[in-house]
Amino acid sequence: MDKARREQLIEVYRDGLLNDTIPFWQQHAPDEQHGGFMTFLDADGTVVSTDKPMWVMGRITWLFSRLYNTVEKREDWLHWARHGVSFIREHGFDSDGRMFYSVTRDGRPLRKRRYLYTETFGVIALAEFARAAGDEQALQEAHDLYRLILRYYKTPGLLEPKVIPATRKLKSHAMPMILLATTQVLRQAGDEPLYTQVIDESLSEVFNHFMKPEFRLLLENVGPNGEFLDEPDGREVNPGHAIETAWFIMEESRYRDNDATLLRRACQILDWSLDFGWDDQYGGILYFKDCKGYPSPKYEHDMKLWWPHNEAIYGTLLAYHLTGEQRYLDWHARLHDWSYQHFPDRQNGEWFGYLHRDGSVSSTLKGNMWKGPFHLPRMQLNCWKLLEQADSRR
Amino acid sequence: MDKARREQLIEVYRDGLLNDTIPFWQQHAPDEQHGGFMTFLDADGTVVSTDKPMWVMGRITWLFSRLYNTVEKREDWLHWARHGVSFIREHGFDSDGRMFYSVTRDGRPLRKRRYLYTETFGVIALAEFARAAGDEQALQEAHDLYRLILRYYKTPGLLEPKVIPATRKLKSHAMPMILLATTQVLRQAGDEPLYTQVIDESLSEVFNHFMKPEFRLLLENVGPNGEFLDEPDGREVNPGHAIETAWFIMEESRYRDNDATLLRRACQILDWSLDFGWDDQYGGILYFKDCKGYPSPKYEHDMKLWWPHNEAIYGTLLAYHLTGEQRYLDWHARLHDWSYQHFPDRQNGEWFGYLHRDGSVSSTLKGNMWKGPFHLPRMQLNCWKLLEQADSRR
Repeated sequence: MDKARREQLIEVYRDGLLNDTIPFWQQHAPDEQHGGFMTFLDADGTVVSTDKPMWVMGRITWLFSRLYNTVEKREDWLHWARHGVSFIREHGFDSDGRMFYSVTRDGRPLRKRRYLYTETFGVIALAEFARAAGDEQALQEAHDLYRLILRYYKTPGLLEPKVIPATRKLKSHAMPMILLATTQVLRQAGDEPLYTQVIDESLSEVFNHFMKPEFRLLLENVGPNGEFLDEPDGREVNPGHAIETAWFIMEESRYRDNDATLLRRACQILDWSLDFGWDDQYGGILYFKDCKGYPSPKYEHDMKLWWPHNEAIYGTLLAYHLTGEQRYLDWHARLHDWSYQHFPDRQNGEWFGYLHRDGSVSSTLKGNMWKGPFHLPRMQLNCWKLLEQADSRR
Repeated sequence: MDKARREQLIEVYRDGLLNDTIPFWQQHAPDEQHGGFMTFLDADGTVVSTDKPMWVMGRITWLFSRLYNTVEKREDWLHWARHGVSFIREHGFDSDGRMFYSVTRDGRPLRKRRYLYTETFGVIALAEFARAAGDEQALQEAHDLYRLILRYYKTPGLLEPKVIPATRKLKSHAMPMILLATTQVLRQAGDEPLYTQVIDESLSEVFNHFMKPEFRLLLENVGPNGEFLDEPDGREVNPGHAIETAWFIMEESRYRDNDATLLRRACQILDWSLDFGWDDQYGGILYFKDCKGYPSPKYEHDMKLWWPHNEAIYGTLLAYHLTGEQRYLDWHARLHDWSYQHFPDRQNGEWFGYLHRDGSVSSTLKGNMWKGPFHLPRMQLNCWKLLEQADSRR
């Protein structure tokens, strides 16, 4: 990558983060009256729902803390991080220590789910905030919540599954991948032997159970020992999700002194997923595909969602950074260009989240129960910092 | 409607039903080995999943019984109806009398849900089959299952709700509408005072709680006494669903010696829903809209699904039949033409179910957990019979 291109990209990511994404959410999301954030917003920031999804509360709290820890010690970022942690502490938890999935504007619980994803976003919020504020108690809370996740995850029957387990047992790629990412965040606030163990187990599950060389794909759902299930759930591929896992593994390779085996496997997942997920007809990454080519039963299967593109932009840039291979730079340019042509809301800022297959906007929502300031600003921050680092090394 | 148009339409509906829709499913769906039907099919009938959704088992059984009862005493139709009832009896029920939502090919239970829709399709299967086969036991089973539905529906707390009820209580338009339709089918096998009572209650709920003159819309979800909830769930409109309810009410008007009040209200729902649901840009009926114009949070909100179009084709034809108003004939022509331009699979027969907003095909699936032979053949059968009846009255 030449210097001009690098500087141009740094500008796109850094200025996009600091002058567009963050201001959009800082302006529209904070709820001064009831605490927390209102993130279920239309294109111009209009509040579409006052309900507060705890996924997004955790992620926005992580983001403000992360900005404070990695960009600049800005008091407003620390303030909003603290604002988020207060709401999570006050309204996020059920009496059993698990977290609610969503609460009303004033914090009354609406839903609790039989999955542990909310809790993982609680962990990264508390752990990143602990580093920002030097709050030992927050770190302890993060650690306790992390251990609760592991207990629920490892104890059969503690979470009631959707499918009757006597008939069919499936496990989801999402759990080892999110445990990997969550542990990586937690580890930055202080390492423990448990963390390496969890990460090693997660990596082993991904490599041995979810990666399928016979399909050249990473599957979303397999049996307890990686058995292939020849049904829609068992054949499901989410290329963007696999690409996100790929770069988590690349980060682990970096952390482990550029472990070559980890890097090679991560690149294999990335290669497979780009080849399979890229839409040759309209460009962009398809949301769900069936590994055997049957139609996916999901309504949204051929939509273009913002977050797989965020993950692929950073994933390919990181792969280029770590391998020096030109094809990753080519992929990065292709992904970057398609995404920046289709996703940004040129009128109100930030990105649309939901495009039709042909790239036209399907929904103008900026936020909902899942979309909030997370994948986009994390990509912008990571790409910016990676390019800066590459620049200083030259 | 002139005679030539009527005869042409009869041909489209009757021949579509008898020479296209029914043969597609008769050829591809029956499972001779394990009983029941495999209905999760790709465009050409390829089996995409062998799992058996009990919604569809109930509906296909109802359909074959219905054809036998209303079209012709064909032994193959009765055979497949019996084939469906046997599978439902053998594998459809949990020990508590409730039904499973899905089972494996060989009938082992996969999922059971906290909604009663599977059971309502069990009732119409058993009741329609009872009439076809003269099977008194099936009628008793239908009646028992119907009473179980009422008991679960009326007893607070018996079904665990998704949303924590201390915080928010919502009821869905789907329950009174499906109770109305289920009772109408059951009543044909023999009336009981309970049926009129249930239908009257359902109608009263629809009119007084779900119809909102201030929006000129029928809402999908309201509070226990019809309270408006200014959140995405509370603002949700499914125009095709409301139109289906409208024609159930028109049928009730017919049954009650052309009750003018019922007809007027049904037409009001129909008018509102057509005005709101029709897509002026691309044609067709949008799947979900927000009553205040905010974006719907559902991925599929602007897709064109087959079934709202089936319901609207019959609903407008029936409204024309009952009122003689030309605008219903105009709507019927518009809906019929758009649907027949976009949904039929000209290569393999039957209809595609899932189109993008612009009318292009999103998924080639002929069946899945919800789509099977129900809305399309019911529309074809009802339209054909209505046009024949109108013809003979002239």
